[in-house]
Amino acid sequence: MPKDTYGRPMTNVGVVGAGQLARMMAEAASPLGLSLTVLANDDSESACATASAVVHGDPTDPAAIERLANAVDVVTLDHELVNADALATIAPRCPVRPDPAALRFAQRKDFQRTTFAKANIPVPPFVVLETADPALVEAAARRFGGPPVVKSSVGGYDGRGVVVAESAAEALAAVEAFIARGPVVLEQRLALTAELAALAVTAVNGERRWWPLVRTRQVQGMCAEVTFPAAVPAGVAEAAHSVADQVARAVGAIGVLAVELFVAGDEVLVNEVAVRPHNSGHWTIEGAVTSQFENHLRAVCGLPLGETTPRAAAATMVNVTGADAPGSLAAALAIPGAHVHDYGKAFRPGRKLGHVTVVGEDGPDARVRAWAAARALGTAFAEEGA
Amino acid sequence: MPKDTYGRPMTNVGVVGAGQLARMMAEAASPLGLSLTVLANDDSESACATASAVVHGDPTDPAAIERLANAVDVVTLDHELVNADALATIAPRCPVRPDPAALRFAQRKDFQRTTFAKANIPVPPFVVLETADPALVEAAARRFGGPPVVKSSVGGYDGRGVVVAESAAEALAAVEAFIARGPVVLEQRLALTAELAALAVTAVNGERRWWPLVRTRQVQGMCAEVTFPAAVPAGVAEAAHSVADQVARAVGAIGVLAVELFVAGDEVLVNEVAVRPHNSGHWTIEGAVTSQFENHLRAVCGLPLGETTPRAAAATMVNVTGADAPGSLAAALAIPGAHVHDYGKAFRPGRKLGHVTVVGEDGPDARVRAWAAARALGTAFAEEGA
Repeated sequence: MPKDTYGRPMTNVGVVGAGQLARMMAEAASPLGLSLTVLANDDSESACATASAVVHGDPTDPAAIERLANAVDVVTLDHELVNADALATIAPRCPVRPDPAALRFAQRKDFQRTTFAKANIPVPPFVVLETADPALVEAAARRFGGPPVVKSSVGGYDGRGVVVAESAAEALAAVEAFIARGPVVLEQRLALTAELAALAVTAVNGERRWWPLVRTRQVQGMCAEVTFPAAVPAGVAEAAHSVADQVARAVGAIGVLAVELFVAGDEVLVNEVAVRPHNSGHWTIEGAVTSQFENHLRAVCGLPLGETTPRAAAATMVNVTGADAPGSLAAALAIPGAHVHDYGKAFRPGRKLGHVTVVGEDGPDARVRAWAAARALGTAFAEEGA
Repeated sequence: MPKDTYGRPMTNVGVVGAGQLARMMAEAASPLGLSLTVLANDDSESACATASAVVHGDPTDPAAIERLANAVDVVTLDHELVNADALATIAPRCPVRPDPAALRFAQRKDFQRTTFAKANIPVPPFVVLETADPALVEAAARRFGGPPVVKSSVGGYDGRGVVVAESAAEALAAVEAFIARGPVVLEQRLALTAELAALAVTAVNGERRWWPLVRTRQVQGMCAEVTFPAAVPAGVAEAAHSVADQVARAVGAIGVLAVELFVAGDEVLVNEVAVRPHNSGHWTIEGAVTSQFENHLRAVCGLPLGETTPRAAAATMVNVTGADAPGSLAAALAIPGAHVHDYGKAFRPGRKLGHVTVVGEDGPDARVRAWAAARALGTAFAEEGA
């Protein structure tokens, strides 16, 4: 029976949220003999069908988080749109992993950018606005040599809360739209040569393991494809590892940490940070000795970490985002080696419904098959260069 | 949405029984977006924590099987100690896969031996006794050149219902103990050089795929270890494939079929048949492109089969059978590459509580690590040659 650092047994993991990440945690919890209890608004949420138990309530409601904490041995997260103060309140009685301080890097873009900049961790040139002041927006546009990217400090995911402005006026409109939620970050728009993601897991004792670097491709601000290996020049990979390592030290989260990285020429800069299993790590379910979901559970339960080495030379993961109509599971499963992950969500155009992974010794072949299966499932996005 | 041959959608699979096989089916059902509903006597059974839903009742009770059938799109099995007549009754309304006729090969040892012998499928020399007649037992002992192995026709598993008699008197006592349940099979005791298992999956359209042959090692009649590759001479492997193929044609079950084989010198003979995922196939979860659990679900839902090719050069699976006290999950997970499967059962000496699989390029190394993890988890059995 796994025990935490206080010697308490940790066999029931509580998850704030019940989306696909919680669902894949449940799939990983079952073989380990761990129970997984999710906090869900209603039983139609992705993880409810396979979780051991469901506590009903909203992840922003302190009373709901309290009920979850009372039912489990340790609390972790499915997403970051949660009540951090409520987590801090329960933490002295029920371990919260990652702890609410680490969560802040994912919850508050302004805090993340400011803290990383102070620690000399490379981030895109940015300013933080506290008010929708046209003069400041124009000053930023001048400083950046063009209209900025406007990012809400809170509540953003999958491209939401981000506007790539084409003019200072458009930037101002975005700032005006976001400012009610809190400070707004204006960033220089970079000419990206690639986007990468680095994924680590950190144990209670501080041990940290990294999965191999991957390349991500976004469509309309949503991750469409993840490929391993990242296939970037050695210098870029080295810079990426170095930046990601600095981020991991600064954030200090127990469990899985994902660092999304921008590559602009030779430079590698931090884009986003997630303190939980991440879309860029779904390929590890079949592609690595230990998946991000299993290692996240091992970490939050105080268990030894599993190996993060790849199981094959290459892998491609493609997200399935609802197009006009649901696709065919049978057609997808007819593609050799296609590992289908259906999140059990009701179909809706634009909704992330599942993903497909193909691993193999031949990277381009794995990529072709992964996209073929995703197309069969009806994904809205097409592959780059197709 | 998968559909059966009548065009009905098949997204909710009912399982008669809720043991570890149903639990591992639930783990495989979740990524495919399938629901799994188990028939369980009580909620402490292995699969209840992770199944989508539980129907309460006994697998031998026709009313319980009726309730399960009313809740699902297709019915399959966790074990064979089920009411075949009740399954035959519901089959016209709700597909039962494997069908009750195929189930008979696994449920009735006398039927299996007699049918295979008629079809010239090699089985150990045997006689079927309808009564506990000392003269017939002695005649069998004479014919076999020594005291026979006595097998109950029904209800046997994990060595139960089998007595390897050391004398004709002991054989008679066993026959007397078993005869109330039905005919008793007496078999010649063979000098085994190895035991093998062949695992296949058969689709609704008749397509059949085989996983690679494995070697099994039994302790006290229970499977202790499964190793891939089987590492037997080419002639033996060829004979094993040929016998297993004959069995698959004779049984004709949709879903997974396991054929346990005796090797006696150059001869390969049928030991047991299972028409469901089988202990000898647990290694496929990590060791093959598609696991036996996923392919069983694909088959019973009328979906295309997945690839059965191995993902590494070697694998060892070791069962964890309760010894004196529960072991340490943390110690097992500290073994590199150890994939732990805990069935979530209450500890009891002698009970099958879980298994461990290690895959890799180096067979002996994988075997050492799998046993180390199983020992850490407290398995009752020691490896051969240790």
